[in-house]
Amino acid sequence: MANFKGHALPGTFFLLFGLWWSIKHPFRQIRRKRERQHGDRDRQKHTVLFNRIDLIEGALKIFFAFVGIMAEQFVPDGPHAHLYQQDGWVKLMNWQHSTMYLFFGISGIADVLSMTSRHVPVGLDRLSLSMALFVEGFLFYFHVHNRPALDQHIHSLLLIAVFGGSASTMLEVFKRDNTLLELFRSSLAILQGTWFYQIGFVLYPLSGSPWNLDKHDNIMFITMCFCWHYAVSILIVGICYCGVFWSSKWCDGRPIGDMEMGLRKCPASDSSSQKALLQESDEE
Amino acid sequence: MANFKGHALPGTFFLLFGLWWSIKHPFRQIRRKRERQHGDRDRQKHTVLFNRIDLIEGALKIFFAFVGIMAEQFVPDGPHAHLYQQDGWVKLMNWQHSTMYLFFGISGIADVLSMTSRHVPVGLDRLSLSMALFVEGFLFYFHVHNRPALDQHIHSLLLIAVFGGSASTMLEVFKRDNTLLELFRSSLAILQGTWFYQIGFVLYPLSGSPWNLDKHDNIMFITMCFCWHYAVSILIVGICYCGVFWSSKWCDGRPIGDMEMGLRKCPASDSSSQKALLQESDEE
Amino acid sequence: MANFKGHALPGTFFLLFGLWWSIKHPFRQIRRKRERQHGDRDRQKHTVLFNRIDLIEGALKIFFAFVGIMAEQFVPDGPHAHLYQQDGWVKLMNWQHSTMYLFFGISGIADVLSMTSRHVPVGLDRLSLSMALFVEGFLFYFHVHNRPALDQHIHSLLLIAVFGGSASTMLEVFKRDNTLLELFRSSLAILQGTWFYQIGFVLYPLSGSPWNLDKHDNIMFITMCFCWHYAVSILIVGICYCGVFWSSKWCDGRPIGDMEMGLRKCPASDSSSQKALLQESDEE
Amino acid sequence: MANFKGHALPGTFFLLFGLWWSIKHPFRQIRRKRERQHGDRDRQKHTVLFNRIDLIEGALKIFFAFVGIMAEQFVPDGPHAHLYQQDGWVKLMNWQHSTMYLFFGISGIADVLSMTSRHVPVGLDRLSLSMALFVEGFLFYFHVHNRPALDQHIHSLLLIAVFGGSASTMLEVFKRDNTLLELFRSSLAILQGTWFYQIGFVLYPLSGSPWNLDKHDNIMFITMCFCWHYAVSILIVGICYCGVFWSSKWCDGRPIGDMEMGLRKCPASDSSSQKALLQESDEE
Repeated sequence: MANFKGHALPGTFFLLFGLWWSIKHPFRQIRRKRERQHGDRDRQKHTVLFNRIDLIEGALKIFFAFVGIMAEQFVPDGPHAHLYQQDGWVKLMNWQHSTMYLFFGISGIADVLSMTSRHVPVGLDRLSLSMALFVEGFLFYFHVHNRPALDQHIHSLLLIAVFGGSASTMLEVFKRDNTLLELFRSSLAILQGTWFYQIGFVLYPLSGSPWNLDKHDNIMFITMCFCWHYAVSILIVGICYCGVFWSSKWCDGRPIGDMEMGLRKCPASDSSSQKALLQESDEE
Repeated sequence: MANFKGHALPGTFFLLFGLWWSIKHPFRQIRRKRERQHGDRDRQKHTVLFNRIDLIEGALKIFFAFVGIMAEQFVPDGPHAHLYQQDGWVKLMNWQHSTMYLFFGISGIADVLSMTSRHVPVGLDRLSLSMALFVEGFLFYFHVHNRPALDQHIHSLLLIAVFGGSASTMLEVFKRDNTLLELFRSSLAILQGTWFYQIGFVLYPLSGSPWNLDKHDNIMFITMCFCWHYAVSILIVGICYCGVFWSSKWCDGRPIGDMEMGLRKCPASDSSSQKALLQESDEE
Repeated sequence: MANFKGHALPGTFFLLFGLWWSIKHPFRQIRRKRERQHGDRDRQKHTVLFNRIDLIEGALKIFFAFVGIMAEQFVPDGPHAHLYQQDGWVKLMNWQHSTMYLFFGISGIADVLSMTSRHVPVGLDRLSLSMALFVEGFLFYFHVHNRPALDQHIHSLLLIAVFGGSASTMLEVFKRDNTLLELFRSSLAILQGTWFYQIGFVLYPLSGSPWNLDKHDNIMFITMCFCWHYAVSILIVGICYCGVFWSSKWCDGRPIGDMEMGLRKCPASDSSSQKALLQESDEE
Repeated sequence: MANFKGHALPGTFFLLFGLWWSIKHPFRQIRRKRERQHGDRDRQKHTVLFNRIDLIEGALKIFFAFVGIMAEQFVPDGPHAHLYQQDGWVKLMNWQHSTMYLFFGISGIADVLSMTSRHVPVGLDRLSLSMALFVEGFLFYFHVHNRPALDQHIHSLLLIAVFGGSASTMLEVFKRDNTLLELFRSSLAILQGTWFYQIGFVLYPLSGSPWNLDKHDNIMFITMCFCWHYAVSILIVGICYCGVFWSSKWCDGRPIGDMEMGLRKCPASDSSSQKALLQESDEE
């Protein structure tokens, strides 16, 4: 996998999942608020729809993880499911990548279980995603020994996105359905995706001369470049959020001037939501 | 203790406690939810039963800790309660292990006190368990100076399980009776147990040639192997959870189709649980 | 920017923002409590006023960030928007500073959006400010390679104020409108401001002999000096708090003997705030 | 201060404060619960009593901090308020200790303000104590350069108690009046106190031969010894808790069989405490 494609592939997956999340979560929040405002007419319908979407997302994760493991094992220069031979461990890199995919597969299974059974503890899907990201970061951390300075640095920057995502997803276990945390996770997933591409471009340039992997200026540029990637990632999430918001407004044709995001501005007329009321009275 | 048995013994204890927790906690959750649904008929009975179980667990911990301390002190090559002699400290390794057992004993005493007296602050049992794990990790951290690279690495991986368990148990002080945290703690205990075995197999192989403790490939394999252990540990906890769930269903003969786990899906008919209602309305 | 002015400029901005926050937040809290006590007469008016103030604050942030980026780019020895030339990267220091300003600009945009639209997730303003501080600390962390010991130390002390502010602001996402956290953030902003000045005075002394950058005693003094800066910063915030409090009392001419800060002492007569009641009964 | 007395003095203060807290906090909790049970008869009286006690505690802190600063400055070999002379900084050690006392003095001022004014934000006393401990740890961290291995190690163990106390006190800002956290803080204060004595005994032995400061066995023993100190500290806090509990029972002569600690077991008859009810129904 030590080539451009080997970095572009996981990058594409993280990018796709990040984009998908930054569309799914705002959409779901808007639906929920609208229902709270206009009554429960389509509530049952939408809950079923969103559960089905989550189910498909989980199934896709399992499928991609399975394909990934198979690909890592049975590419021409892969280990072909051999772990140990007389001369030592066989293709440990491929085995490590397989292990990463395995945990994303477990996360997919947890998603599917959370959606199909009501007896699964709440938050299992987020905890397993957090574990999958932690394992990814954990294996990457011990991945880059004895490499040039820039190679190590560019991978350790990746770890910030990975462990940041893991910590943020762990928070979601306890602060479920917090729009901001969901968008933060989306932005970190997009960051990870684009950064994988950046690693590919730097270490295995498609054209032009290769980078000097020991020059300090390059390290300084890459550090700054990581921030630019995050700024772009925030921009993408922002565009998706606005896009979902406006398309939702136009499709429905109903005024959403009073529709509101988040607990802060919950309508006081909702008599059952005393907590929201309290929240509001705290704010004013 | 620097042999296979010395690692297998604590491994067995952690394994047993992990398995026991991954059976006890789901069972207790299922009982609680069933009672909430079908009324309070057997509530008093079950509360007494679970308190007794916790009491026995605490007593066992004290007993094992006491046996452990005695064994460390009075094995033939132990310090026999001598701490200092003319030529220096006596058998500090054994004293360190005794100290670890001491704190698990304190955790057992806290369990017993929490169950027998209603005047003990809530959460003392979890805090003391968290401290016991912290002390274990703390002593292990300064345990492995001047050893080969693989020996240090394999012990530092153990620390991830130990400190992870300590942090997760500390969270339980504030988020009491959260099924997910309890299962997470169980899985980390099982991981610690199996990893103790793995350390024993690697450092003191029962058969075959000894491992090369300085080869980088071995370190890479062990890192990955740690993840596999955790995957297996998740699998074991999952099987226990399902086993408890199905056996509980069959034993009772009552339909539990409507029975639910966690706050998310609390029955809206429970008029007193306004908080749950709010939670639900947030979710939908 | 490697001169006294280059450190005084950002220092002045952080100092001004810290002072402004330590006046704004107590003022807002006092208004809120007064309204809770004396009824909702001027509520609408004050909410509009405070929203407008936040809007102006956000606009100022955007303006300053834009000016800062322009200045860094187009000063006589700046990169003039050139990033790469034949001989390598152009003026990376200026580009890094521009990147820092960019994220404070994004934070300003988030402030403006939070105030103008009700559809923005709650807490976006704090999260973006936290990210801006994190990026500032992140870039500074990789900023000071191969410099003398005192130079590195004095910058790493700055990081404590920066990352402390980032963490505290992140907490505000979840604990919104907590007076204590807001004052803590103010004090850390003032600390950062005065510390920038201190860095300027130490590294580029305006008069007298330059500091010995490798003497251990200087490092010890600077460490202690950082604590003194924080003590002064606490004093400034305290004076602002008292000043706002007394001026608010005198201007209004209404007795505020019964007015109270924080949830702890909420009037029990407020029938709708059951949560506050519970809180109170917990306390007694 | 580099002698036995210089370590025994702060040790004694931390020990006294730890013991005092481990008596005050249980006593206050017992009073509160008793009042909740038997009605509000003496509530006003006790609230006044406890506020006065906290006031005295704060005043004592200020007094001790002032005496400490004066002593550090004007001992025969102290700096006598001179900071800089021709040949460099004067007695930086004494200045650092003065700085530590200063922040404990600020914490005392915050205590007094919290008790005398109702307009101070809730939690200021805990935040300022947390900051005082942080500053203590921060200065100690840069205190022990170029010293023998054991000297560095024994001071870095102290940091665990200091930063642990700081983190735990910070938690109390958000989880106010949590008995467990208060007892935890007390135990860490006692640990810090006894550990200061231990440092004094090891580095400046009163009798017998001095310790070999570079022997690895000594480091291993000291690590374990730190755990024993904590076990003793837990024991002391436990004895104080039981002592307060039994003396409170005997003095009053009223049965407290039904009296309960913590939220878990709040009487369900308390109709206003719906939150407690919910908590209870979660637990059963």
